[in-house]
Amino acid sequence: MSKKPIPDPIFTLTTGPVDAYPAVLRGLSRPVLYDYDPAFLAQYEAVNEKVQRAFRSSTPPVILHGEPVLALEAAAASLIAKGDVILNLVSGVYGKGFGYWAARYAKEVVELAVPYNEVLTADAVAEALRKRPDIAVVALCHHDTPSGTINPAKEIGAAVHAAGKLLIVDAVSSFGGMDVLPEPIHADIFVTGPNKCLGCPPGLSLLHVSEAAWEKMEANPDAPRASILSILDWRRAHEATQPFPFTPSVSEINALDAALDLYLCEGDEAVWQRHARTAAACRAGIKAAGLSLWAAREEIASPTCTAVRIPEGIDELALRTIIRDRYGVVVSSGRAETLGKLIRIGHMGPTARPVYSLVSVAAVAGGLQALEVKGIDVGAGVSAVMKSIDSTV
Amino acid sequence: MSKKPIPDPIFTLTTGPVDAYPAVLRGLSRPVLYDYDPAFLAQYEAVNEKVQRAFRSSTPPVILHGEPVLALEAAAASLIAKGDVILNLVSGVYGKGFGYWAARYAKEVVELAVPYNEVLTADAVAEALRKRPDIAVVALCHHDTPSGTINPAKEIGAAVHAAGKLLIVDAVSSFGGMDVLPEPIHADIFVTGPNKCLGCPPGLSLLHVSEAAWEKMEANPDAPRASILSILDWRRAHEATQPFPFTPSVSEINALDAALDLYLCEGDEAVWQRHARTAAACRAGIKAAGLSLWAAREEIASPTCTAVRIPEGIDELALRTIIRDRYGVVVSSGRAETLGKLIRIGHMGPTARPVYSLVSVAAVAGGLQALEVKGIDVGAGVSAVMKSIDSTV
Amino acid sequence: MSKKPIPDPIFTLTTGPVDAYPAVLRGLSRPVLYDYDPAFLAQYEAVNEKVQRAFRSSTPPVILHGEPVLALEAAAASLIAKGDVILNLVSGVYGKGFGYWAARYAKEVVELAVPYNEVLTADAVAEALRKRPDIAVVALCHHDTPSGTINPAKEIGAAVHAAGKLLIVDAVSSFGGMDVLPEPIHADIFVTGPNKCLGCPPGLSLLHVSEAAWEKMEANPDAPRASILSILDWRRAHEATQPFPFTPSVSEINALDAALDLYLCEGDEAVWQRHARTAAACRAGIKAAGLSLWAAREEIASPTCTAVRIPEGIDELALRTIIRDRYGVVVSSGRAETLGKLIRIGHMGPTARPVYSLVSVAAVAGGLQALEVKGIDVGAGVSAVMKSIDSTV
Amino acid sequence: MSKKPIPDPIFTLTTGPVDAYPAVLRGLSRPVLYDYDPAFLAQYEAVNEKVQRAFRSSTPPVILHGEPVLALEAAAASLIAKGDVILNLVSGVYGKGFGYWAARYAKEVVELAVPYNEVLTADAVAEALRKRPDIAVVALCHHDTPSGTINPAKEIGAAVHAAGKLLIVDAVSSFGGMDVLPEPIHADIFVTGPNKCLGCPPGLSLLHVSEAAWEKMEANPDAPRASILSILDWRRAHEATQPFPFTPSVSEINALDAALDLYLCEGDEAVWQRHARTAAACRAGIKAAGLSLWAAREEIASPTCTAVRIPEGIDELALRTIIRDRYGVVVSSGRAETLGKLIRIGHMGPTARPVYSLVSVAAVAGGLQALEVKGIDVGAGVSAVMKSIDSTV
Repeated sequence: MSKKPIPDPIFTLTTGPVDAYPAVLRGLSRPVLYDYDPAFLAQYEAVNEKVQRAFRSSTPPVILHGEPVLALEAAAASLIAKGDVILNLVSGVYGKGFGYWAARYAKEVVELAVPYNEVLTADAVAEALRKRPDIAVVALCHHDTPSGTINPAKEIGAAVHAAGKLLIVDAVSSFGGMDVLPEPIHADIFVTGPNKCLGCPPGLSLLHVSEAAWEKMEANPDAPRASILSILDWRRAHEATQPFPFTPSVSEINALDAALDLYLCEGDEAVWQRHARTAAACRAGIKAAGLSLWAAREEIASPTCTAVRIPEGIDELALRTIIRDRYGVVVSSGRAETLGKLIRIGHMGPTARPVYSLVSVAAVAGGLQALEVKGIDVGAGVSAVMKSIDSTV
Repeated sequence: MSKKPIPDPIFTLTTGPVDAYPAVLRGLSRPVLYDYDPAFLAQYEAVNEKVQRAFRSSTPPVILHGEPVLALEAAAASLIAKGDVILNLVSGVYGKGFGYWAARYAKEVVELAVPYNEVLTADAVAEALRKRPDIAVVALCHHDTPSGTINPAKEIGAAVHAAGKLLIVDAVSSFGGMDVLPEPIHADIFVTGPNKCLGCPPGLSLLHVSEAAWEKMEANPDAPRASILSILDWRRAHEATQPFPFTPSVSEINALDAALDLYLCEGDEAVWQRHARTAAACRAGIKAAGLSLWAAREEIASPTCTAVRIPEGIDELALRTIIRDRYGVVVSSGRAETLGKLIRIGHMGPTARPVYSLVSVAAVAGGLQALEVKGIDVGAGVSAVMKSIDSTV
Repeated sequence: MSKKPIPDPIFTLTTGPVDAYPAVLRGLSRPVLYDYDPAFLAQYEAVNEKVQRAFRSSTPPVILHGEPVLALEAAAASLIAKGDVILNLVSGVYGKGFGYWAARYAKEVVELAVPYNEVLTADAVAEALRKRPDIAVVALCHHDTPSGTINPAKEIGAAVHAAGKLLIVDAVSSFGGMDVLPEPIHADIFVTGPNKCLGCPPGLSLLHVSEAAWEKMEANPDAPRASILSILDWRRAHEATQPFPFTPSVSEINALDAALDLYLCEGDEAVWQRHARTAAACRAGIKAAGLSLWAAREEIASPTCTAVRIPEGIDELALRTIIRDRYGVVVSSGRAETLGKLIRIGHMGPTARPVYSLVSVAAVAGGLQALEVKGIDVGAGVSAVMKSIDSTV
Repeated sequence: MSKKPIPDPIFTLTTGPVDAYPAVLRGLSRPVLYDYDPAFLAQYEAVNEKVQRAFRSSTPPVILHGEPVLALEAAAASLIAKGDVILNLVSGVYGKGFGYWAARYAKEVVELAVPYNEVLTADAVAEALRKRPDIAVVALCHHDTPSGTINPAKEIGAAVHAAGKLLIVDAVSSFGGMDVLPEPIHADIFVTGPNKCLGCPPGLSLLHVSEAAWEKMEANPDAPRASILSILDWRRAHEATQPFPFTPSVSEINALDAALDLYLCEGDEAVWQRHARTAAACRAGIKAAGLSLWAAREEIASPTCTAVRIPEGIDELALRTIIRDRYGVVVSSGRAETLGKLIRIGHMGPTARPVYSLVSVAAVAGGLQALEVKGIDVGAGVSAVMKSIDSTV
């Protein structure tokens, strides 16, 4: 109590961890049940059913008890066998990063890359698969959050499927905020988390696994078993009659339960629409304020995250600091190659509501003005936000 | 809403997940901050300092973002190098289980085992180390929860230390409920979790790592890095200026923060004492009710868990079911070799208060009576609980 | 932080304020809405509908925004006109107390009283009404909590109704814990609160008002209007289109909303049954432990509160203090004439579950033993509790 | 569950009930204690001490258990004796309203009124007191919320004090948001509530009572006693050893406790400053957007509420509806004489942070644009808000 605590920010407009819905915070404060208590077993089964409904999938999901990096590492470790050639699709830092895990388990990783403000095309993927028919698994980061760009998952998935390959999709920060579902994109392992567009805290991973992926993992002697990295161990854990491989994160399940109720009650398409409207308003405002988007073209910009190019000569930490100090607004920095080059405004879960774009645009533009950047027009930015909101009522 | 939900139990008197303190539930419902927000960075550093104070240790702790099985697997993967010989001390299911992980990474695992209702002795450990001077690392499960027995950690630690070996200690379900601290027992990796005697939900691991252990892990080329299983990645994460290897579980940190405030404010010795008093009252009641403890001798019985032998012919699930249905009380089953042979009453965190032994003894004895076991005396059991409580006021 | 805080008790087994359901605590933590926000207006209407369903009544209820003493004073002030003669039925402290309010507004208050461990009869009431045909209003305290006794509301209500008089019923601490509903007992003003058997905090009153009572109040020029004491002001406040006379207690409404969901979902008869079972087990235990009930006969003892006579020479505060210090259990004292003569164990809301009678009987008996009262048998008490529970499974 | 629920608003920028601080919501979810439990008695005393510190007063406060209309009615009923002449100062709807209560208890009410967009002066008050030396009590509404204007309490208080009269001050919606404290303004009864600038839900009143006021109330035979309207009954309730006149609102006290910790920890002057900065930014934005303030002069505009004149021909409900529907923002309507003529933006408690003026100005201006009001400039409004914020960093 000796140090004056740093006050909490007023608006957490980040790309994760994100602000949680009030009902999720109340969910977190539910009593903690014993994992083998019948009430918890029934709840766990019910939550899995809700995930399946949210996935609109034909088979039960898998919940892993760590934030989605766990699921991505586990997917690499489980699906990729020693002799496999992997096609890793790279349009940003996270896509690139998956390649390191893939390389740990594969015979060879072939990379198809585009600049980090661009996205991949299905044609290029098809071409890469034609060149190397020995590729077994393709990995795609759908929304490369550090760039705020969206790859055409449906088209790429169709190409991969047509070629008879398995597909791992990282949809961590896009699922729940736009139309991306495991089966329509032919994902064999589809990884997401409740801590982005579902408005939960980080701590869990949600997976869809196709029958083909289950078979390949079962057949892989090196796929983790009796390990935190195992997906196989959890295959039947959704059934109330089955044991847990280890103790599940009870309170995170309570949070997820509350979040799924919100999501399913509001309706997924309605949720996606407000993510899209918020991002559209934000982009309109950012441009009108005199700033540029990071994405090469607006049509590839994410509906769940707007990446804004930082003007020359501006230090990103100084910018984020002034935004927080003056307006109480927290936005995300870039990562690795994009660090220092952009800031990211999240539109995820509870903050995916258009009015937040007023706050984010005004705060970012205001922060740049305070740093004496020329040509910034807060008023024009906010007017454009309002116009965008009003045009989509 | 179609199925009538199973009502929550009234008393969760388990060995984990355990009932959480009300203040911990309120901690869980704090707003979710961005992990790189300065307020969260400061909080994370402060929480680490509180863990260090709770550990009474001279160096900062490590927090891993998964429940303690993660830390135990990570400890095996990180500390054990390919050429190592490991001495695995086995007095129960969890001690035995660690051997499987050890075997995955070691050249050889030597096992020193006792029956699962007994504990190891420092002499036997010293003898084993003399026999096999090539042993590099010793692994001890301090409180083998599925047996409810406590190994003499201080004495064993001294023996291991005298022999110049490294020691991994699983104190998951004993730390916070009794006098077991990393440095006095010469633990090189000390693993515990907030989800037992600290009264938090499962989802984090707390580790103390000695300088020698850090050196060995740094020197181990196979120690996990850039992995959920890495301890090394998190070495400096407690510093507010350092990045997180991946997104920490923000809400679990909020819960831990609240739990540590309770623990440090009440005072560790006071907390240990109420765990001890609760267990003593429970054991007195169990015996007076006509039942037997699982532990071979009462002095090795855990202050955080009372394992009660199930009378011949009684099905443990039937017993736990009747206890829950009639009295709303949930207790833990055994695990693996002890499954079906005992039930376990947890005295952990908020339930480590003597009055709960009234409830547990009456419920267990009442359940057995309802199953028509002869020779059960609820009244005598409860009277003994009361006498025990009254004698230690 | 300078003074060591007094720790919270472990079990609050009182007659009000009572322990709240966990879901009610979560309800309390809902965001606070503006009272004229459409979402709150809709919620307020919905909560009123739920109260009406809980009352099983044919007309909308009234919610007043203060704990039930407000409603009782308001009932006296509103229904009793200057020229009225009132029959006040007295079987305890609260019934007696209503007479003081009645006297403030009436021409004359006639009292029909029985000893405070007895209850009234419908015959005596009918007789009293025959003697004084000028009586306009009868007042009955259904459950006189300081005595833990239940008057025969249905029979008395029938007698009052047959005589053509209006009836005010204080059912504050019985409604929700037993079969007492406004219309079957012919109550013209029926007062209860969420802070007893519904398991909410204190802060609201719930009223049923008959058409005859509305007419009498409307016709009474002295009935409070534009006052905190007004019932009339709130007549239509349950309609989403109507203004509030003053700002409602938003968070208390959130709590009530959650409590009514629990009550209606569990089913009122199921709730009443567990109150009855808990009280029956408690009474069995108290008697077997060597103690006496305050109620003259067990059949008039309340299902929501067990009043236990304190043995000669025992100081009630000393007793309650030792019970809290040793066992963490809080019970209620008597009030006014019953203060010092009895202690009261509440069976209300979440504590109206039989297992709590284990705790209460053991704690009360244990406390008396600690005070060296002779002839107390904790074991026998608890055995009788268990037998009672088991016999009603 | 049949009707689709109305979604909660995103921003509650009202003048009460107001948005509560997250820590207050967590405070509300604390377990409910028995009012006579020693832990609650100690907490109640501590909360009173915190109120006294917040009041910076020399004597203990009084907490009444209903929202501040209770305290205002109680003040009239208690302090005003049958023979008293009252000077009621009127600059708005609430000041006018107090006169009705005063008239209920006084011999005569003299009114000194100004238009509802103006404020009173100390000179006028002094003059009124000179004219009628038989005046016993003066009543002042410090912040007439329906007008958003602030009367000069210190000057008026000095004039009343110099004339030897008693002063009742309604500071419900100003205390905690600006420099208004009971003793510096010579208030004999000072009424406020936690549900405005302290960021709590409605349900309590906080009073300061001078020694002279206590004497007058004690001497007043008609001052309520044994009534919800009594102030006298609660005089010593702040002492842990004294009984409560009736059951206090335990959860509201928990909320207040949390709110006072926030207030005292942040420091009252810091809190007042952010209320002032928020209002200044709001007023700047409103004017720049092409709108007018309700207050005749900006220097009398409240730092806790900005009342904005509604342009001719615009329906206030239509305006508030469109603001909520499009932007999720809730603002307050006017009341009585000001209803339909203005809308009010609250700057109270958690929303008294400058960034919220971005939201409120954009939303109000946007709403009017949507209703096709000419001459509205959202961009200019928001730019002015930003400039105001930036100028006061």
